[in-house]
Amino acid sequence: MMSLLVTGSIGIDSVQTPFGVSENCLGGSAIYFSIAASYFTPVRFIGVIGSDCPFDLAEIFAGRDVDLSGLEVRQLSKTFRWKGSYHNTMNEALTENVELNVLAETPPAVPEKFRDSDYIFLANTMPMLQLELLDQIDKPKFVAADTMNCWIQGHLPDLKKLLERINCLVINEDEARMLAMDDNLVTAADKIGQMGPEVVIIKKGHAGSMVSTSVGEKFVLPAYPASMVKDPTGAGDSFAGALMGYLAKSDKTDFETLRRAVAYGTIAASFTISDFSLNGIASISLDDISERLEYIRKITTF
Amino acid sequence: MMSLLVTGSIGIDSVQTPFGVSENCLGGSAIYFSIAASYFTPVRFIGVIGSDCPFDLAEIFAGRDVDLSGLEVRQLSKTFRWKGSYHNTMNEALTENVELNVLAETPPAVPEKFRDSDYIFLANTMPMLQLELLDQIDKPKFVAADTMNCWIQGHLPDLKKLLERINCLVINEDEARMLAMDDNLVTAADKIGQMGPEVVIIKKGHAGSMVSTSVGEKFVLPAYPASMVKDPTGAGDSFAGALMGYLAKSDKTDFETLRRAVAYGTIAASFTISDFSLNGIASISLDDISERLEYIRKITTF
Repeated sequence: MMSLLVTGSIGIDSVQTPFGVSENCLGGSAIYFSIAASYFTPVRFIGVIGSDCPFDLAEIFAGRDVDLSGLEVRQLSKTFRWKGSYHNTMNEALTENVELNVLAETPPAVPEKFRDSDYIFLANTMPMLQLELLDQIDKPKFVAADTMNCWIQGHLPDLKKLLERINCLVINEDEARMLAMDDNLVTAADKIGQMGPEVVIIKKGHAGSMVSTSVGEKFVLPAYPASMVKDPTGAGDSFAGALMGYLAKSDKTDFETLRRAVAYGTIAASFTISDFSLNGIASISLDDISERLEYIRKITTF
Repeated sequence: MMSLLVTGSIGIDSVQTPFGVSENCLGGSAIYFSIAASYFTPVRFIGVIGSDCPFDLAEIFAGRDVDLSGLEVRQLSKTFRWKGSYHNTMNEALTENVELNVLAETPPAVPEKFRDSDYIFLANTMPMLQLELLDQIDKPKFVAADTMNCWIQGHLPDLKKLLERINCLVINEDEARMLAMDDNLVTAADKIGQMGPEVVIIKKGHAGSMVSTSVGEKFVLPAYPASMVKDPTGAGDSFAGALMGYLAKSDKTDFETLRRAVAYGTIAASFTISDFSLNGIASISLDDISERLEYIRKITTF
C-alpha cells in the first residue's frame, strides 16, 4: 500500500451562506483533504494548531486511517482562523477575516517515519513552506500542490521553484489565469505546464474541472449537478483529497487513472458542498461515493 | 425528411473583443441557427429585414439547403442592429447599443408552404410574437424556444403562455435563474419544466450545458475546451441550430437522441466562437463537426 502524506492548514472557520451560518467550525485544507482521501487510502497528516484549538482531531478522525503523528500543538500560538461568506450562485468565497496565527510561524516538521512517503499533497500555503516540507521527503513518487492568488502575486519566484519540483498543480480557474497571465484556460493550462508540472488540474467550481498534461492529453468533466449547495467551503480540498487518495490507492498516475481520480474528486466535492463544514463529506461511505460516480458517468455519456 | 423551421432575428452586428473588432457584420439568431442547422438538415427560414440591409442572404446561404421563402424585406423599415463587446473571460456580452427597428414591428408571416413544418425553433424575441408565429404552424412535432432577461422581466404572462405550448426551452444560465427565481440551476431547471416544457436545456457558456426532462432525466456536458475564443456572438444560436438540426434529421426526440443533439450543439458553438461573425461556423464541414464530437466524447470519458 502506497503512503499518502498531506500538509496543509487546520482552521477554525466561520461561514455564512444563503442557507445559514456555521460559526467556529473545524476547517482547513488538510482536514477536508484527509477526510476525503481516507475513503481510499491511509493518510499521513501534517499540520499545526495553537493551544486554543477546541477540536480533538483524534476524535474527528476516529474510524479513519489518518495518522496524526505530524500534528503539532504549539502551546504559545493561536490556531488559524478564517471567516467568509458566499452569495447568490456561491461560486466564490468572500473572505471577511483571516487570522494566519500559527500558519505565519515556522511550518511543522515532517516526522522521521513520514519521510518515506510516496504520494504527497502540499495544500495551499506560502510556497517557501511548501518547498521546505518537500525537502523533508526522501523520494516522493508523485507530488501535487495547490496555490492561490496571494502567492502568485507576492511570492512568484518561490512558487516557480515549487512548480519545477512537483508533478501536478491543482489550481482554481481564476488563479490559473493569473499565474499564466492568460484568460483562456486551455492555453493557460499549457503555460503552467511549461513551468514544471506534468499535470495541471484546473478547478472551475460549478463549471467542473479540466486536466491537461505535458504530452497534450486533455480531460474535462462537469461538476456534479447538485440540487442543494449549502456551503462550498472545502470543496477544492475534498476534490484534491479524493483525487490523491485514489491515485495513492491505485499506485498509478497514468492518464486513465488520473481521469478516474478527477471524477472521484468531483464526487467528493459534491458531498462537501451539500452541507455545512465537514458534515457533508464526513457522513458518507465509499459506497455513496461510488454510486454518485456511476451516476455522473451515466449523465455525461452520449 | 422532417422539416425544420426557424424564426428569429437577422441583424447587423458590431462586436469588439480582446481579439479585434468586427463592424457591421451579418448576425442575428436566425442566421447563426440556420448555418449550424444546415449541416444536418434543410432549413425553412423566417425573418425580416429593412431595405437598408447590405447583405444578400441568398448568397450567404449559397450551397446550403436554406429555404428563404420566409424572408421578408420591408421597404420602409430598417434592419435590426446590435453593438456589443466582450471582455476578459468573454463569458458575457456587454450590449452597447440596440436598435430593434424592424423587430419592433409586426412579425413576418409564415408562408403557406411552411405551415406543415415538424420541428420549430422560435429564437429569442418578444413572447407574444413567438406565440403568433407558432399559431401559424398546423401541427408541429417538436417546438423549442429561446428567451431572455427582458421578456422574463417585462412580458412574463406571455412567456408563461408560450412555455405551456413548447416542448423545449433553451435558455442561458442567468436567465434560467431569473425565470425560476432560484439560484440553483438543478432545481431552477425543474421549476421551469413545471411551467410547461418537457425538456429544459440550460446553456452555461464556457461551463457547458445541462439538460433536464420532466421525467427526471439529466445530461451534463462541458464546453469544448477551445484554445482560441475570438468572438462568442452567436454561440447559443449555433448551439440551438445544430441541436434542432440533428433532432429533425433523426426525427427522434428520445433522451439518447437529445444527448447527442446537445453534443452537436456544443461543437457547433465551439466553431462559432473560434472566429468573428459567421466565419467560424460557416467555414467548416460536417466532417469537422463529427471529428470534434468524437474528440469531446473521448476527453469526457472516464
